[in-house]
Amino acid sequence: MIRKWVPEEMPQEEELERRQEAAKEKLASLQLQMKDHRLPVLVLIEGWGAAGKGSAIGGVIRNIDPRFFKVAAMEEPTPEERRRPFLYRYFAKIPEAGKFTFLDSGWAEEVTRQRLSGELGKKQYEDRIESVRGFERTLTDNGYLVLKFFFHISRKAQKKRLEELEKEKDTAWRVGEYDWWQNKHYDKCLEVFDRYLSDTHTSSAPWYIVDAADKKWAQVQVLERLCSGIEVAFQNESLAVPLLQNIFPLVKMPRLEEIPLNLSLEEGEYREKLKDLQGRLRALHYRLYRKKIPVIIAYEGWDAAGKGGNIKRITGALDPRGFEVHPIASPEPHEKARHYLWRFWTRLPKTGHIAVFDRTWYGRVMVERLEGFCGENDWQRAYYEINEFEKELSKWGAVLIKFWVQIDKDTQLARFQERQNTPQKQWKITDEDWRNREKWDQYEAAVNEMLQKTSTVYAPWHVLESVDKKYARIKALEIVIQAIEAALKEKDS
Amino acid sequence: MIRKWVPEEMPQEEELERRQEAAKEKLASLQLQMKDHRLPVLVLIEGWGAAGKGSAIGGVIRNIDPRFFKVAAMEEPTPEERRRPFLYRYFAKIPEAGKFTFLDSGWAEEVTRQRLSGELGKKQYEDRIESVRGFERTLTDNGYLVLKFFFHISRKAQKKRLEELEKEKDTAWRVGEYDWWQNKHYDKCLEVFDRYLSDTHTSSAPWYIVDAADKKWAQVQVLERLCSGIEVAFQNESLAVPLLQNIFPLVKMPRLEEIPLNLSLEEGEYREKLKDLQGRLRALHYRLYRKKIPVIIAYEGWDAAGKGGNIKRITGALDPRGFEVHPIASPEPHEKARHYLWRFWTRLPKTGHIAVFDRTWYGRVMVERLEGFCGENDWQRAYYEINEFEKELSKWGAVLIKFWVQIDKDTQLARFQERQNTPQKQWKITDEDWRNREKWDQYEAAVNEMLQKTSTVYAPWHVLESVDKKYARIKALEIVIQAIEAALKEKDS
Repeated sequence: MIRKWVPEEMPQEEELERRQEAAKEKLASLQLQMKDHRLPVLVLIEGWGAAGKGSAIGGVIRNIDPRFFKVAAMEEPTPEERRRPFLYRYFAKIPEAGKFTFLDSGWAEEVTRQRLSGELGKKQYEDRIESVRGFERTLTDNGYLVLKFFFHISRKAQKKRLEELEKEKDTAWRVGEYDWWQNKHYDKCLEVFDRYLSDTHTSSAPWYIVDAADKKWAQVQVLERLCSGIEVAFQNESLAVPLLQNIFPLVKMPRLEEIPLNLSLEEGEYREKLKDLQGRLRALHYRLYRKKIPVIIAYEGWDAAGKGGNIKRITGALDPRGFEVHPIASPEPHEKARHYLWRFWTRLPKTGHIAVFDRTWYGRVMVERLEGFCGENDWQRAYYEINEFEKELSKWGAVLIKFWVQIDKDTQLARFQERQNTPQKQWKITDEDWRNREKWDQYEAAVNEMLQKTSTVYAPWHVLESVDKKYARIKALEIVIQAIEAALKEKDS
Repeated sequence: MIRKWVPEEMPQEEELERRQEAAKEKLASLQLQMKDHRLPVLVLIEGWGAAGKGSAIGGVIRNIDPRFFKVAAMEEPTPEERRRPFLYRYFAKIPEAGKFTFLDSGWAEEVTRQRLSGELGKKQYEDRIESVRGFERTLTDNGYLVLKFFFHISRKAQKKRLEELEKEKDTAWRVGEYDWWQNKHYDKCLEVFDRYLSDTHTSSAPWYIVDAADKKWAQVQVLERLCSGIEVAFQNESLAVPLLQNIFPLVKMPRLEEIPLNLSLEEGEYREKLKDLQGRLRALHYRLYRKKIPVIIAYEGWDAAGKGGNIKRITGALDPRGFEVHPIASPEPHEKARHYLWRFWTRLPKTGHIAVFDRTWYGRVMVERLEGFCGENDWQRAYYEINEFEKELSKWGAVLIKFWVQIDKDTQLARFQERQNTPQKQWKITDEDWRNREKWDQYEAAVNEMLQKTSTVYAPWHVLESVDKKYARIKALEIVIQAIEAALKEKDS
């Protein structure tokens, strides 16, 4: 791409000034409208070292109300960040609806740098490209404007700039080893950058190559592209996108009506098993901590199915320094203003830790679907997006266990009534629970669809028959133990 | 892609029947709505030989009113088709708004077959991929629904089917050499198919892999995908798409106001030069016919600028068997119902022939822009689309010459008045001409933008100063001769 690209000729000084002023004014006015349109804009400024990325961002943001943008300078990932999936720190930075995030630089820098250093082999590089494409696609599919700039300068110009920066005490610190390395291996870098750009040049998130030889001209190019990108995005308020075919290996799931309701456990047997299993889980927790395996346990199920008590039996066995429980309620405003997976990406555990989600990202295809909180195209697309999200977790090495806690409608009624009639349990039952119960059949159909479409080989659903809560708790512990043991075994082999 | 894909499990017979009936009914109802939505749907059925592509199409179309679809069985290109650009025969087949075209098979088959036979080397294959991506993108950007299916069967299943087909006299003819060749080189084919699918899997035109082991099941998969694709497309009536950065090398053009108006030629000199140049052009026409070089001469310019007379001086030198003039008026209904480039793609000359366009595809960024016949996003996107179209012509080997015939406003007035006052010329002047004249300044701005943005190295604009028509005619002849001579020279070298 870079090699084929022919830069637009830089205008004369006067014309350049005029275009700069016009673009600044336009951006200021568009920025005000972004709020009404609830458009989130993610701007990636990538390119050669010393190409002037930072100064371009500086020039652009001077025209934007500081309440409406964030700038993130992404360095090489820290050891802490390396304990999360590759995309974690980028997903965390995505803007709210109506706001900008500028990244200096983004994931292109990270992937190409690691490719150049040899940290990523050919196969791993292709894996990364797959992740990047999926990430950018799910952002744009969900209404994000993703603008990607590559700041290009010649080898000679880069050398000159690096020398100039090094001459002054104030700026010398800005020159890193990698900048000089790039200059020495310019052709090799160009090849890798060019390949990356081609690999990630899509019609919904295309690349713009910026002629960065002149700083003001570079800024004008960015400003104009920002404006044109935002104007186009304003025209696409309710975009529906083609549904992608599921390409993820699925496991056959039973339908809810086929699940037996009579499974139970004697109190004595329960006590005994519980003690034994919790002991084993405790020991495993230390082992997976040492092996740095992350574990994610996701709970979904009917109201009053016994999720809370079940979770307690798991966490009761764990070292409190190594796990977190995330109760998921309705999204808060700052969460609702972002991609629906954002609040889950940002809650992922570090390697070696366990995260338990009490309700999950599957809200998209249950409550959000049934209550109309998202459009039909949104929830239909979500099966693929969720499978892809979990695939990312699996590529990262996570053990992912998903529980559907199942009871029948009568059992729920009995438990609701008991809650209502027991003063210390009344907080647990709300009007909303009763309202949801009225939509039982719709929910059942949605759950069945969800189980069929998102039970993958790498992240299968497990049904916990929870009319007898004891039975469900023991089964959950057994499944968790089995999954962790399998992961430890694989890691050892 | 194919190797990663895990087929959905085929439902039991009863469930399969139910889904088939449901999808058929839905498709019938969607087809009626397609007309109102003016949605054109292009369906590519690609895949292994003997995978049942034809029979699947047969099953699907039984549910559609015959007035609303066409099926095209694309064989290997004929010698005649090989004298056009690769995409020509596919562009010619795109459906009208509200209708289907089913291709059995499409460009995937052609590209992969030629890749497998070695006819396309690595570099040429990449060129083809670039063409295909651009083609599919410009269709979907302009409101087409492009649904791509790949019918997949195992090596064993293919072998069994080929043997069965060969056993019966009625079906034996359907087995070709290439089918058996595929079966013998199954793994190699799989690799090439898989690579092609990955290379062309985009979010606006994604691939669907069809498990074609069972014919009814294959048909159900296609039916369901058709329905879901159409439903999604209905939601995107006025899609705006991100504007792509120009990546084509541009030639600097003067602005219209800088063009001198005083260039002229003496009658005597004109006669002499005309005779000489037409003689040379005549000779060149035979040479380029033998060398099979296609030539496209495109005229744009102000009303009454002298396009007609200029064209006559060119064609007067040509062998009538080797050229065609295409006067371009407002599109007819069947043209308006298709991609705006369709009526130009279908009028491309064969190799060795000359096509002269009296007005062109640049209507998109002039009259269609100014009269609001297309949206802003449409004409803004068109600069890229047109550069890309002309790039395709250039890759094909065409000589492409674009003339802007320039006069000033006063000259136009004088010529309008003369037409009005001369009975035999009155047909040449209409109310529309006067109306257009009122928008002179808007047109001038649009023309300036067009000249700046679409004058590429491989298809530059030439301004013909036509206040003195004689001057303009001689200049046009000289430019045409020069361009053809250069192409012949290049072909010889």
